[in-house]
Amino acid sequence: MSNNKFSVTTGSLPASRKIYVDGVAMREIALSGDNKPVTVYDTSGAYTDPNAKIDIYKGLPKLRAEWIKARSDVEEYVGREVKPEDNGLTGAARGASVEEFPNVSKSPIRAKAGKSVTQLTYARAGIITKEMEYIATRENEGRAQASEAKNLKPYQKGESFGAKIPQLITPEFVRQEISAGRAIIPANINHPEAEPMIIGRNFKVKINANIGNSAVTSSVAEEVEKMVWAIRWGADNVMDLSTGRNIHNIREWIIRNSPVPIGTVPIYQALEKVGGIAEELTWEVYRDTLIEQCEQGVDYFTIHAGVRLPYIPMTEHRKTGIVSRGGSIMAKWCMSHHKESFLYTNYDEICEIMRMYDVSFSLGDGLRPGSIHDANDEAQFSELKTLGELTKRAWEYDCQVMVEGPGHVPMHLIKENMDKQLELCHEAPFYTLGPLTTDIAPGYDHITSGIGAAMIGWFGTAMLCYVTPKEHLGLPDRNDVKTGVITYKIAAHAADLAKGHPSAYIRDDALSQARFDFRWQDQFNLSLDPETAKDFHDETLPAEGAKVAHFCSMCGPKFCSMKISQDVREFSQAERERGQQTESALNKSSLQNQEILQEEIDKGLKEMAEKFKESGGELYQKVG
Amino acid sequence: MSNNKFSVTTGSLPASRKIYVDGVAMREIALSGDNKPVTVYDTSGAYTDPNAKIDIYKGLPKLRAEWIKARSDVEEYVGREVKPEDNGLTGAARGASVEEFPNVSKSPIRAKAGKSVTQLTYARAGIITKEMEYIATRENEGRAQASEAKNLKPYQKGESFGAKIPQLITPEFVRQEISAGRAIIPANINHPEAEPMIIGRNFKVKINANIGNSAVTSSVAEEVEKMVWAIRWGADNVMDLSTGRNIHNIREWIIRNSPVPIGTVPIYQALEKVGGIAEELTWEVYRDTLIEQCEQGVDYFTIHAGVRLPYIPMTEHRKTGIVSRGGSIMAKWCMSHHKESFLYTNYDEICEIMRMYDVSFSLGDGLRPGSIHDANDEAQFSELKTLGELTKRAWEYDCQVMVEGPGHVPMHLIKENMDKQLELCHEAPFYTLGPLTTDIAPGYDHITSGIGAAMIGWFGTAMLCYVTPKEHLGLPDRNDVKTGVITYKIAAHAADLAKGHPSAYIRDDALSQARFDFRWQDQFNLSLDPETAKDFHDETLPAEGAKVAHFCSMCGPKFCSMKISQDVREFSQAERERGQQTESALNKSSLQNQEILQEEIDKGLKEMAEKFKESGGELYQKVG
Repeated sequence: MSNNKFSVTTGSLPASRKIYVDGVAMREIALSGDNKPVTVYDTSGAYTDPNAKIDIYKGLPKLRAEWIKARSDVEEYVGREVKPEDNGLTGAARGASVEEFPNVSKSPIRAKAGKSVTQLTYARAGIITKEMEYIATRENEGRAQASEAKNLKPYQKGESFGAKIPQLITPEFVRQEISAGRAIIPANINHPEAEPMIIGRNFKVKINANIGNSAVTSSVAEEVEKMVWAIRWGADNVMDLSTGRNIHNIREWIIRNSPVPIGTVPIYQALEKVGGIAEELTWEVYRDTLIEQCEQGVDYFTIHAGVRLPYIPMTEHRKTGIVSRGGSIMAKWCMSHHKESFLYTNYDEICEIMRMYDVSFSLGDGLRPGSIHDANDEAQFSELKTLGELTKRAWEYDCQVMVEGPGHVPMHLIKENMDKQLELCHEAPFYTLGPLTTDIAPGYDHITSGIGAAMIGWFGTAMLCYVTPKEHLGLPDRNDVKTGVITYKIAAHAADLAKGHPSAYIRDDALSQARFDFRWQDQFNLSLDPETAKDFHDETLPAEGAKVAHFCSMCGPKFCSMKISQDVREFSQAERERGQQTESALNKSSLQNQEILQEEIDKGLKEMAEKFKESGGELYQKVG
Repeated sequence: MSNNKFSVTTGSLPASRKIYVDGVAMREIALSGDNKPVTVYDTSGAYTDPNAKIDIYKGLPKLRAEWIKARSDVEEYVGREVKPEDNGLTGAARGASVEEFPNVSKSPIRAKAGKSVTQLTYARAGIITKEMEYIATRENEGRAQASEAKNLKPYQKGESFGAKIPQLITPEFVRQEISAGRAIIPANINHPEAEPMIIGRNFKVKINANIGNSAVTSSVAEEVEKMVWAIRWGADNVMDLSTGRNIHNIREWIIRNSPVPIGTVPIYQALEKVGGIAEELTWEVYRDTLIEQCEQGVDYFTIHAGVRLPYIPMTEHRKTGIVSRGGSIMAKWCMSHHKESFLYTNYDEICEIMRMYDVSFSLGDGLRPGSIHDANDEAQFSELKTLGELTKRAWEYDCQVMVEGPGHVPMHLIKENMDKQLELCHEAPFYTLGPLTTDIAPGYDHITSGIGAAMIGWFGTAMLCYVTPKEHLGLPDRNDVKTGVITYKIAAHAADLAKGHPSAYIRDDALSQARFDFRWQDQFNLSLDPETAKDFHDETLPAEGAKVAHFCSMCGPKFCSMKISQDVREFSQAERERGQQTESALNKSSLQNQEILQEEIDKGLKEMAEKFKESGGELYQKVG
């Protein structure tokens, strides 16, 4: 494979520059004129920093390496040897390997004997780590001061359903949330390239994008670019769900080049190692796969340890049975061996392994509903109860835990999912896939699920797993990944707004102001997808002059409601400057006094109307 | 203009045929094998009936003409003469006319002196009209029997927030809802081509699509095709918001060819008649425009009579002022003349005119918020209170009324809109635009607003006005119209599901079953957009054989979770047929007895596992 196969997308978004606040990367969007720039959360890593030298063959700088070393609780050791079957390269497939990442480390790190190196360990010990400091700065998005909570308007206050988001995040607050298990920092010590981020309902709602090859398509370059592309548009985490060949090698390329946490479902690779035959899975193969991935630097594992044998028959009368791939693998294994799941019976050892590397649990919902019909049923909630028990057991090992949720749920049953999860899983962060709110729109499931995602995010879900337009139909391409990410950024942001996150409305207000002021370029630049916004505008009005025009294509130059509103305002202000009694009338807003108000206004408005006519009374004025 | 300019889209959707149940058009989707067809609500009119002869130059058959005549309360009269200014053809624009619709009727009908011909008049008099009968059949979507309400599962029951949707709609129920003002049937007696439909929160949630030329683009053929295209994908109503030239002529073509109600905002045309200068509007010009449009057959008018003079100053401290075009026209007029709105002062005469033709009110929310910042403010709710008063006054004239709502509202403030509207507007149907739940995604406002639309539809909004991806940026093209309609069909359907509409889950269940059975074609055909679903599938797996394959591109042929679930089910069923004690164990679902259950299962499963292995235990089986 030659270098030029790896052409990842780099460069800033329009009008944006990478800034560093106390070493934490953020994106600053410049606005025109005297308008202050807007700082936003930035997941895109070095790829949007024109000063960074990107070399996919070297990987990203190891931001956290020194922090980890300084804690003196890890040791290098000779790692597990990579085997052909890690890449599915046995038998006839032997020659089909992709290029290895150059200079793969042969000496991963792990906790020294007797040590636990998870962020939960430190938090419980009262230690504020560098990661926690980084996150506190990051979550504040450049706000140096807390908003005046007492002066908040209803649109700013939100309704948080019990979430408690402080006006300004401190490192100590981050520590407390981690310590309580209400948030996690997915941060494998073997993935020091990652920029620390937090998942918890008292922080910004996060989104995850899935990538990965499958048995029918495959390319390293494509998957690395998908990761870079997904984080460019705002993915906070990326899961590599590869199921075809070269899983190990592709993952190495992705992790070494990823500034965001990487999650996997280890059972997928384990299954490949036994030729795709679920009943041939063993604890030993699975355990070996966990260690392989821990050493590589995967930050969180989806583990379907809640698919217990007694729950499988509960799915029999479902419309769509078991739709989770991991869940159905384990169901098949349990049925074939008439045994309890080996993930459940070996759970303690799994915890011991994961805490050596600080890999977080993402407890998989293997029995999640696969259709509206199956939502909130006995199988789903039985498993959820077990996930709650497993959460507590992982906490005993100081492991960090989040819990996965559905799936397919009609709107009226969504809140029950959140409420039960909070109760049964002791407030461990919830991480849901959508949910889809109807099943009748394949091809548009980013939308059917974006509705559910926004709602469950509002109710308290900490991370939303995206769904692309191709869900249920095919594998997402580059455009689908972008559409999925943008849709989920909308859902997460709408949730932050509704929860009353102290920074959520700043961007909305800035964009609305730009819209009202006819600052078209600012409006594009403040949007989640500046390129699409500009392209759509230019389809109707391509002339460069139209970008500063005080009208748009909807109404045309002769008439514009925004322009009228400005006229109304200027007129009112001019009048007020004259200090007339009208002012008190205008400000008197009680509806009870409408009649009196009307009289006063009549008096004042006669003069105002004359002045308005004198000033030309014209709506359209030349600009620029 | 030659005939071939009018190439509207005709033909059935895949696997669909037009059926008539008691004369009411519906769409029947055929499924493969022994699976029963699914009947769905059909808005597409004759254009999807291969037996219908479509002639745009003649217009559609006049379905309701005989019904109207049989009531003996209308009279033909010599209508208003069409004037050049009706089409904006004065001065230099004189020669720019588009072709007139051939054989325009010169003799519209109106109520005989002393008669009122609104559906509300009949309903209050205890009369069940043909329109009401048609609607009862239509709303039941081919269901002949009521569901067994007592056996409904939670996903079927819904949470209706006080809406009362019967299991089966009767004509008498329709009459009662109309009589109470909780629903309207927009049905101008001069638009007999329209198929009756109902807007009310105890019926299916409806959607409206906006079309119309503007000062910067214009074409008759394009607008007629946009209407046909919008209803093909499910638009229940279409509003013609044209603002450029030839407004009168374009509207005639649209109405004569529209099987769905057509709405307009008459102030737009009135403004064109006075050269686009708001302050030159007069009651006489407006009144003349109302009559012009009543005679043509417009089914509902947006009238911004709630933009009262005292409320205008309340918008001064908004981020985005007045964003409603009609609202800002009236605000400018009020400011210029220091007078109360002529729509408000002449409201009684407006009612008298509209009831002569049974044009429904759509009371415009001219002061709706144009940004998250301005949501639920004093200006908005002051106007809403006035709209409630105007609702009652229109009811005194037996006029049908719905009330328009926002706009831009963060999720936590959406329900307050619905609750206040129900209270202040006496349960008159609510008709909202979105609302958008965040302002940061221009280019994706179908999604930002689809989230809000689904929620407010669930809470009780009767009709959702679509938003296309081009909102705030440009004029929607054909693809944008389709995307907007499909997105809003999703929102309306998700709302119906969550409200517990008795027919809502039938289609979801059928599609989920098809998905589980690997009936790919059925899955595509049952979806809102079969073409896109099929195209997306074929991008990854184009071979025709893949349409019957028991796998998809997500997991590939070696492993599929759906297939495993089927294995689990077949296995369980085979076991049950043997009548073993295992059955009782499998069905015992109490979590308290897990230990005992485990033992029993162990006993039974040993045999089950053997049988499973004997049967091959293979996941992938050749099909077809």
